[in-house]
Amino acid sequence: MSLTEQSIRDLLTAFSSADPTPGGGSASALAAAVGASLLMMVAGLPKSRTGSDEDRAALARAAGALADIRHRLTGAIDADTAAYDRVVAAYKRPKASAEEQSARTAAIQEALRGATEVPLDVMRQSAAALDLAAVVAAHGHRAAASDVGVAVALLRAGLRGARLNVEINLGSMSDADYAGAVAAEAVRVAGAASTAADEAEALL
Amino acid sequence: MSLTEQSIRDLLTAFSSADPTPGGGSASALAAAVGASLLMMVAGLPKSRTGSDEDRAALARAAGALADIRHRLTGAIDADTAAYDRVVAAYKRPKASAEEQSARTAAIQEALRGATEVPLDVMRQSAAALDLAAVVAAHGHRAAASDVGVAVALLRAGLRGARLNVEINLGSMSDADYAGAVAAEAVRVAGAASTAADEAEALL
Repeated sequence: MSLTEQSIRDLLTAFSSADPTPGGGSASALAAAVGASLLMMVAGLPKSRTGSDEDRAALARAAGALADIRHRLTGAIDADTAAYDRVVAAYKRPKASAEEQSARTAAIQEALRGATEVPLDVMRQSAAALDLAAVVAAHGHRAAASDVGVAVALLRAGLRGARLNVEINLGSMSDADYAGAVAAEAVRVAGAASTAADEAEALL
Repeated sequence: MSLTEQSIRDLLTAFSSADPTPGGGSASALAAAVGASLLMMVAGLPKSRTGSDEDRAALARAAGALADIRHRLTGAIDADTAAYDRVVAAYKRPKASAEEQSARTAAIQEALRGATEVPLDVMRQSAAALDLAAVVAAHGHRAAASDVGVAVALLRAGLRGARLNVEINLGSMSDADYAGAVAAEAVRVAGAASTAADEAEALL
């Protein structure tokens, strides 16, 4: 059953069980999806910062982009668990013969790449949402400032958690070019997102 | 219907709707509950840091305490929304006569107090979980370090989000002694939690 179809109570039980999945990757995607959802809420309130047409247009654009981001982050909750399960399955492949060893190594590397792409995209989507947090903070209703603040905190945490999951996989990866490119992107995305988050918080 | 009985998908939709609840308070409690759940997972893994009896005993104690904390945080997801709904209802009370105005003011103040106690307890429970994060980091299986790191990030975010919700209520509160005591506790809890979080991260 899809994690997103489970109840909160059941998902919390699943996170706390000793099974390896769902784990921190899915939890990070969930936190970021909740953050994006709160920004959508503030962008959709009947009241805006000043009641101007400019506010309304900016918030409508932000709401549309946030809906796409939330959709991707929601998908990542399940995708991260599926990708990690493939890594575990690859490590369990037979390794008696040289052929089996070679096929197992290739399968592990391919699975690790999949398990890296999911949290890397969670980082990208969280960063994009944090860019929009500044728009929502600038044009959204002042009474909802604490909701924007919570959204920023959750998106920061989702991005940080996703980054930890990217980095743990890079250590086991044999393709140094790929690992280097991902590491560089992770640093760049995290840096830009931190600046965007600070800007949004300064507007609250 | 209880928020915790809803599916993740439905809860994300509820967070993003323009209805004032559920909002940032419930979202903060959820993030902290997920963080506590991940720490429970690592504490319950068959493998520990060194495989020693000391590890096992420390992790078992942490798991028991975390289960209580997770229970309170899960309850706060619904309690925050219920408390905020009572604030909204109090503001809608009639205010035609002096008696009505006086009763309305008292109802608002009582409701604000309830809406402050819930996130204040989320702060306390998140801080207690962050204290235990250091125990789990010190004694838990090294391969789960990223899960502990994600848990710390989510608990920090839950605590920060809860603090924003405490502070927004204090501004509307007429009982200065109560507001001052809560503000002082919020500063104290947040400071201790930040230190505990830093200590846990240093062990990863």
